[in-house]
Amino acid sequence: MPQNKQILLDSRPQGEASASNFKLVVAETPPLQEGQVLVRHHYLSLDPYMRGRMNEAKSYAAPQPLGQVMQGATVGEVMESRSPMFQVGDQVVGMGGWQQYSVVDAEPAERFRLDVAEFGRGGAVPGALRKVDTTNVPLSHYLGAVGMPGVTAWYGLVKIIEPKAGETMVVSAATGAVGSAFGALSKARGCRTVGIAGGAEKCKYAVTELGFDACIDYKEHKDAASLSKALKEACPQGINGYFENVGGMVMDAVMLRMNAFGRIALCGMIAGYDGKPVPMSYPQLLLTSRIKLQGFIVSEHMDVWPQALQELSTLVATGKLRPRESVAQGLESAPEAFLGLLKGRNFGKQLVKLI
Amino acid sequence: MPQNKQILLDSRPQGEASASNFKLVVAETPPLQEGQVLVRHHYLSLDPYMRGRMNEAKSYAAPQPLGQVMQGATVGEVMESRSPMFQVGDQVVGMGGWQQYSVVDAEPAERFRLDVAEFGRGGAVPGALRKVDTTNVPLSHYLGAVGMPGVTAWYGLVKIIEPKAGETMVVSAATGAVGSAFGALSKARGCRTVGIAGGAEKCKYAVTELGFDACIDYKEHKDAASLSKALKEACPQGINGYFENVGGMVMDAVMLRMNAFGRIALCGMIAGYDGKPVPMSYPQLLLTSRIKLQGFIVSEHMDVWPQALQELSTLVATGKLRPRESVAQGLESAPEAFLGLLKGRNFGKQLVKLI
Repeated sequence: MPQNKQILLDSRPQGEASASNFKLVVAETPPLQEGQVLVRHHYLSLDPYMRGRMNEAKSYAAPQPLGQVMQGATVGEVMESRSPMFQVGDQVVGMGGWQQYSVVDAEPAERFRLDVAEFGRGGAVPGALRKVDTTNVPLSHYLGAVGMPGVTAWYGLVKIIEPKAGETMVVSAATGAVGSAFGALSKARGCRTVGIAGGAEKCKYAVTELGFDACIDYKEHKDAASLSKALKEACPQGINGYFENVGGMVMDAVMLRMNAFGRIALCGMIAGYDGKPVPMSYPQLLLTSRIKLQGFIVSEHMDVWPQALQELSTLVATGKLRPRESVAQGLESAPEAFLGLLKGRNFGKQLVKLI
Repeated sequence: MPQNKQILLDSRPQGEASASNFKLVVAETPPLQEGQVLVRHHYLSLDPYMRGRMNEAKSYAAPQPLGQVMQGATVGEVMESRSPMFQVGDQVVGMGGWQQYSVVDAEPAERFRLDVAEFGRGGAVPGALRKVDTTNVPLSHYLGAVGMPGVTAWYGLVKIIEPKAGETMVVSAATGAVGSAFGALSKARGCRTVGIAGGAEKCKYAVTELGFDACIDYKEHKDAASLSKALKEACPQGINGYFENVGGMVMDAVMLRMNAFGRIALCGMIAGYDGKPVPMSYPQLLLTSRIKLQGFIVSEHMDVWPQALQELSTLVATGKLRPRESVAQGLESAPEAFLGLLKGRNFGKQLVKLI
């Protein structure tokens, strides 16, 4: 069996996460038991939710255990199989973690859904493995646009915001894995779609490549009032739906422009992940504008995944969603790439290439 | 025609409202035109929403115009009628304003509903007048438990919170007109029902007279952490639904105890009515607890009024809802009674008796 580099959570962050919280080790992969498969990971997904799990405090997910392999989604190839459900050469998506290889209990497809739901509530999901078709969709996209981030965008837009054609939709972190999928899904529904992102390059990309009608660089604005003014120009009819990934000043600015009966899908508040309090400055706007705001975790809504993945894979296959990827090379680069993601240094879906 | 004392909005508040913002005048009531009725007001309703309308800034309702009679709901008796729709002696509820008499264009009942909806969006509603039956419900209750405040509680509970039997519901300003109706409606649905109010006397009344399972005196708690601890004891299963009337520290404390998939009906944020910013301290809880929060204005949901009023009048007629009233005597007392209401000095529905 091959040697297996792994990254463990070595300590919990005090405030900002740092490289010292992680530890690289090398382990042997154990021999396969009956019903198990050996997967070689091609790509590891890095996602903002992982930061929350590094804390001790109970969030919606249980903490990542100390001294164990960092959990995370992976795509890869079956190298060896003692299960009738998988053949050598199958391409698979799973929760392989921050390591080069994983040994997985193969289980029926229905079990995968249970596992992922369990994962959302904090359970470990060693058995989650699903075959994917890479004819029209590159393997790595199953970690992004045609994976959990894409379904996240779909759920917030379709099930919480419920957009009507002609309405105006706004998404923060617009060029990220979730934001770029949100843009394509929103445009497909006939909505004016405005992004918020950090930096001129990202904003240009959002408009020219991702099809956003406009994109605002929040880094050009020192406070919510200034950003809100820019939003007024980009959203002359006001904002009907908002997909929130960041919180803080950006959220305050958008709320100042929400129309009556606006809807906010609350997916992430990356601004507060280091433990600093990030208050909402104008909660009275939720009342005066009669806003519906809903927090959600996509893994608790497994029933929508098949429908969402179908639409997302079609958008990718037809070129209507061309997600960008930031690819770090080698498992050793995962901690720095992850810390960069938390600072918005990534450009599109952040991956680590392991082969 | 009788002389008519009126209270006008004389100036807009800078910060806190004060008695000097109001002005008492005496006017003649004009002679009736064809289709009009003269109403003598028995009671004037004082409601927190009026404070918002005293500001210049556009809120969900248009500002109260300067130099004009303060708008507000009234109950009274028809003294003279030139409309076939009303007889002398009819008891009526309407938007008569802060004055002793009003001359009203009688209009069909359907028009009333439009008018009230229009009022919610800021229009004036001179024509809103509706006959009421005082056989089993005292006239004044049509301004409280069997009026706008009662329907407000009903809408938030039934349409936004959607309680299930056995769940735990919390309401702030629990002994007020809205809160006391909420308590009875929540108990009728088999929920553990916990109030938050200001002062030991109010809390005792909430439990002994209004049927709350527990009531917490927020004045005994200096911060959200302390109040939250008291809520933990009163709500051992956590909180599933919250009806918000006040905002600020009380809201922060409740949010710290909300269960996953909790629902918050946002009705009022009296803590912020003087223009001081009242941030929400822990918006990340909306995400981690997957909370649905929705702001609403009851006058925009006129379709539920008949159903809600029917349940509320039955609760009152059968003694299951025994709303308490604070009654100020004479139109001249309205400004001070209103300022007291904003400080929580009222105990139950605040009325002004005009006869």
